[in-house]
Amino acid sequence: MSASGARSPQAPAATKAAGTVAVGLLGHGTVGSAFARLLAEQAPQIELQTGRRPALCGVLTRSQGSFEEILERAEVVVELIGGIEPARRYALQTLAKGKALITANKQLLCAHGEELYEAARASGAQLRFEAAVAGVIPVIRVIREALSCASLERVHGIVNGTTNYILTEMAAGRTYAEALAKAQAAGYAEADPSDDVTGRDAAAKMAILARLAFGVPITLEDVRYEGIEHLAPDDLSYAKEFDLSLKLVGTAERLGEGISVRVHPAFLYANHPLASVSGPFNAVTVESSQITEITMSGPGAGGIQTAAAVLGDLLSALTSPIPPPPPPLRLPVVEDVESAYYLHVEVADRPGVLAEVAGVLGAHGISIKSVVQRGLGANARLVMVTHRTRSSRLEAASAALGRLASVRSKPRAIAVIEEEFN
Amino acid sequence: MSASGARSPQAPAATKAAGTVAVGLLGHGTVGSAFARLLAEQAPQIELQTGRRPALCGVLTRSQGSFEEILERAEVVVELIGGIEPARRYALQTLAKGKALITANKQLLCAHGEELYEAARASGAQLRFEAAVAGVIPVIRVIREALSCASLERVHGIVNGTTNYILTEMAAGRTYAEALAKAQAAGYAEADPSDDVTGRDAAAKMAILARLAFGVPITLEDVRYEGIEHLAPDDLSYAKEFDLSLKLVGTAERLGEGISVRVHPAFLYANHPLASVSGPFNAVTVESSQITEITMSGPGAGGIQTAAAVLGDLLSALTSPIPPPPPPLRLPVVEDVESAYYLHVEVADRPGVLAEVAGVLGAHGISIKSVVQRGLGANARLVMVTHRTRSSRLEAASAALGRLASVRSKPRAIAVIEEEFN
Repeated sequence: MSASGARSPQAPAATKAAGTVAVGLLGHGTVGSAFARLLAEQAPQIELQTGRRPALCGVLTRSQGSFEEILERAEVVVELIGGIEPARRYALQTLAKGKALITANKQLLCAHGEELYEAARASGAQLRFEAAVAGVIPVIRVIREALSCASLERVHGIVNGTTNYILTEMAAGRTYAEALAKAQAAGYAEADPSDDVTGRDAAAKMAILARLAFGVPITLEDVRYEGIEHLAPDDLSYAKEFDLSLKLVGTAERLGEGISVRVHPAFLYANHPLASVSGPFNAVTVESSQITEITMSGPGAGGIQTAAAVLGDLLSALTSPIPPPPPPLRLPVVEDVESAYYLHVEVADRPGVLAEVAGVLGAHGISIKSVVQRGLGANARLVMVTHRTRSSRLEAASAALGRLASVRSKPRAIAVIEEEFN
Repeated sequence: MSASGARSPQAPAATKAAGTVAVGLLGHGTVGSAFARLLAEQAPQIELQTGRRPALCGVLTRSQGSFEEILERAEVVVELIGGIEPARRYALQTLAKGKALITANKQLLCAHGEELYEAARASGAQLRFEAAVAGVIPVIRVIREALSCASLERVHGIVNGTTNYILTEMAAGRTYAEALAKAQAAGYAEADPSDDVTGRDAAAKMAILARLAFGVPITLEDVRYEGIEHLAPDDLSYAKEFDLSLKLVGTAERLGEGISVRVHPAFLYANHPLASVSGPFNAVTVESSQITEITMSGPGAGGIQTAAAVLGDLLSALTSPIPPPPPPLRLPVVEDVESAYYLHVEVADRPGVLAEVAGVLGAHGISIKSVVQRGLGANARLVMVTHRTRSSRLEAASAALGRLASVRSKPRAIAVIEEEFN
């Protein structure tokens, strides 16, 4: 527990600090320049609320500015460079000086969060990073503040807008390649989209949320993630038929004495709050027995939206300091989690195949909730939804099915997430 | 601007206040008793985060306890009595002493918010009231903190769970009376449901949100509200046919130099973020050009959820004091607002009627987006969706239509809200 957390509920001391708040800006790309504009535009409003007017005291770009000079002058440092170095070094120096740090850098927080949190605890500096996850959706604020004593049990998130855009296009009938090309043309996907489509970006964001929700340090190595590149139009058409939505879902949850953090494509029933999130939007659902569930959704990215989240952090750092994340808890990461599954099995078109397949699943303790047979001859396949089972059982059963003479290729499995509260 | 708003971004002073936080609890009904249980349960977690353990120092009920004694001992007062008096007097005395006040009392905030906000500004006391609107959904925190410099333009809310439950049941085919009876049996509607079904409860909540979003004091008299009692199963079936959802929607928005706050049934297109909110859930969408839109949804009521919101406020009052709402702005309330409309006109079943009806609408400057004719003979009717028009024009046109010989009764009009960002 940090000494800085202990305070009376009285409002802050009434000594008026006149003048300006010196803001040092690191990075002047899309978000950095949007932030600079927004800061100038909203300065009078911020003065109204804080008694002081914020103004840039220096901007560091690749070609100009000195970090040391900016840090000397700044009261708040806004880090929008991205990547690990030199962002990490700048962030640590800022916090070590006890100066407020606002960052949108998910890579840095995912890889070196503990170092930053510890630096903030040591100096009592403000550390805010709303824009690092889910853009302008205030999920970090809500988890750190509103729900910090709500004993959270689970966080589900659609935290990558690129893949959600691609899946929305695929649900409308496009192939993966067509949808990706459209996302690139619309500026939602980069020329090299691998960080997004492999689930890696979402995994880093879920690691950050898991740390805040459960207190457990999670790095990318602790997150099992799977992307959307292998999804087939078939999967999307079955989704439609069963009234399911196919999304790239991140999950962080308590499981007994451990936690699990994972990202993979998942089918959602129509009444799940994430099922209707479409296009480049993000959304996060937070669950606990006390609050039932809260869902927040909105644009996941965009220069101006991200800048607005950064500015909200800046204002809060000035008016409502919060304690840094507490020292980490150590809980084991659970690999073998339970889920219902959609299972797509290409089979020989002859009597008795369903009985054979069902027999293998039954032998692995997996029971079938619904099954339909589709196609004829060389195109015959079984599409099933199972009841909840452990992933290890599903994998063993899939391997056994793949060895059957009547099964033509390795079965495809996709998790199915059921809404618990509707 | 309050002096208490001016502070450095440094974390709170590092002097450890040992011991307990004395919490005075006013009211011990459903929410009050749930709060007392939750406080005891979460006290260790709160001690971990603040360095001090909260404990009740007194409980005031109708039959026992003395407010003055509780106030003397308490550092934080939690008001869960509801209603205006004596809640108002207790709240003002608490704030005048500079002690933190947490309340869930929407009537009090709607009717006497300015008095409370002024008292908090005068003494620098913490004032938090998350549970007053939309239960555990942290909409107040997000508007007061995350978005306080986002230049909000519009807030749409489904902020009454009872009516949303009833409308969900009506959409499934029940009449209003059947749906109301079911809501009462399920505990979602009171024996006298008028506060909910007339839109009055939602109006009070929208008034509170409007004050926070736009700085303008709004009382119940400033809110034009209309309930759901007059809705017919017909309206719901047409909604289904046009792929619209019928909801009781509260709107607070900037309109030129003024603002409008209103509550009425409205049709939402399927892609509107509020369209899929069903059952007793609440949801709020906040819009501005900077953030595009953010939607938050979750359970609107329930003892434990409301208690969780109150506890979140208590923890924040201890760790992250925020400035009270700033002094009010004065902006005119605009009555004549623009909207698209669904229009249901019972007509004589003979040629030329559509031309006649369209002619009257055209003469009032209203253009028709879609129209279908339904039923035969004495059951014939036109169902139309118009383009956006002022409510004054719609009313004049409705009156003119009612005077036509070929129109059998006063037309029914329901606003249609289009999604702006999808």
